[in-house]
Amino acid sequence: MAVKQRGLASEVTGIGRNPDRLQRAVDLGAIDNWQIDLESGLTDADLIYIATPVSNVCDFVRRSVPFAKSGCIITDAGSTKKEICADADSILPDRLHFVGGHPMAGSEAAGIEVARPDLFENAAYILTPSSITDNEALGKIRLTAEKIGSNVLQMDPETHDRCAAVISHLPHIIAAALIGLADDYAVNDPQIFDMIAGSFKDMTRVAGSSPELWRDICISNSDGISEAAGRFANQLNQGLQAVIHKDAQAFENWFQRSKDIRDLHIKNINSSQE
Amino acid sequence: MAVKQRGLASEVTGIGRNPDRLQRAVDLGAIDNWQIDLESGLTDADLIYIATPVSNVCDFVRRSVPFAKSGCIITDAGSTKKEICADADSILPDRLHFVGGHPMAGSEAAGIEVARPDLFENAAYILTPSSITDNEALGKIRLTAEKIGSNVLQMDPETHDRCAAVISHLPHIIAAALIGLADDYAVNDPQIFDMIAGSFKDMTRVAGSSPELWRDICISNSDGISEAAGRFANQLNQGLQAVIHKDAQAFENWFQRSKDIRDLHIKNINSSQE
Repeated sequence: MAVKQRGLASEVTGIGRNPDRLQRAVDLGAIDNWQIDLESGLTDADLIYIATPVSNVCDFVRRSVPFAKSGCIITDAGSTKKEICADADSILPDRLHFVGGHPMAGSEAAGIEVARPDLFENAAYILTPSSITDNEALGKIRLTAEKIGSNVLQMDPETHDRCAAVISHLPHIIAAALIGLADDYAVNDPQIFDMIAGSFKDMTRVAGSSPELWRDICISNSDGISEAAGRFANQLNQGLQAVIHKDAQAFENWFQRSKDIRDLHIKNINSSQE
Repeated sequence: MAVKQRGLASEVTGIGRNPDRLQRAVDLGAIDNWQIDLESGLTDADLIYIATPVSNVCDFVRRSVPFAKSGCIITDAGSTKKEICADADSILPDRLHFVGGHPMAGSEAAGIEVARPDLFENAAYILTPSSITDNEALGKIRLTAEKIGSNVLQMDPETHDRCAAVISHLPHIIAAALIGLADDYAVNDPQIFDMIAGSFKDMTRVAGSSPELWRDICISNSDGISEAAGRFANQLNQGLQAVIHKDAQAFENWFQRSKDIRDLHIKNINSSQE
């Protein structure tokens, strides 16, 4: 939808399993036409954009090889990059080019009905070239991401996964754990859900995301999440120790420090969710 | 502002320290007039509404006693209730009535410039009567809270603090810890702040709250937060163990359960932040 609205592609073909949803995507202006059959859909494609759960990305890369024309660029939108980029590099012949990508856009909502052409505007779009990534292919994906309004960042797949654990994957798990905590208390305090206001609602928004999608993401980045969880426990413990020991000054200093960092780096981020 | 717009008080006098800010409150329609001097401000008041940091509430209750007329109702908006209600009950003579309150409204922003008359609409407003709270006074505060659009909940102060730790106090500490975590990673991965999108921004919004306010709240509810933190660690660990052991089905089930609880209890909450 973003590419079509800006005239960045002469033709966009959607490939999927459900004709009704694919036709709805045509009606909403997200694609020009659609195919159920992979071979028919990929014929003559200059760019293949894989937007499946992370565990299916490399299966599609593998299945595309026989049908993709020489010079075709394949990219993805998976939330983890280490496994996907390593597998794609090992699967593809030299005549095809893979560029790993992760647009930091979207929300807990899913489906064609929530698609919008401005989704990527002002959002970070991370590209994760490996040592064998084709530079021309990387440049083309970078330019397209910029043209749909994203701020492109480049880093290796390992750095991506380490940082994504901190700013996305672990927070999703924390959100789910906070809901579990409220439910745990509700056994004896059933009024607790009626007390909920914006802070708890905002902090648990991403727990409404697809369990299947997040199962794959979290299992794929098990190492990154494990490290982030350990370091998060250290951070949390600093605040909790001050509270438990009723050390008012230590708590205020600790909280002030986070507020200062937020004001500097986070407050003015213009994000398209994720 | 909410009370004045609905004509629920014949006169609203603001008492504060800063004449410029008080005059600005008059200009914005939040109060009719103002006083710096407590005695002048409280003369003839039917209702005293204390909206200070939690650590100052009972100091104002104590200082109001000599000037408040018989039958005057005193209420507060403090985010913790156990300490405040016990102290107020012990301070006040029989001729004055205290009703503890906690409107679950507001945001990380502070000051008269962000005041709005619809702040309390659809927000939970918790009243925490003790065993000696005057029923007529409780009824009047309840009616006023309902008339400004709140959903009034009633519970004892201990229940309030135990539940508020879960849905508000601990989440504030978690938000600050998440920012500390990103900053910890930024030492080696300075790009991490550029990767941040809506999920991390939303989850850390409340870390922008006043450190002084939240110092007092968290120290006042040290016991409630300590218990909530321990039970949160258990919930978080369930999700993390599934990730660390790459048990995809266990993780999906765990995340699905939180999503189901959120869809049932939280998704459609119409909140005014907090």
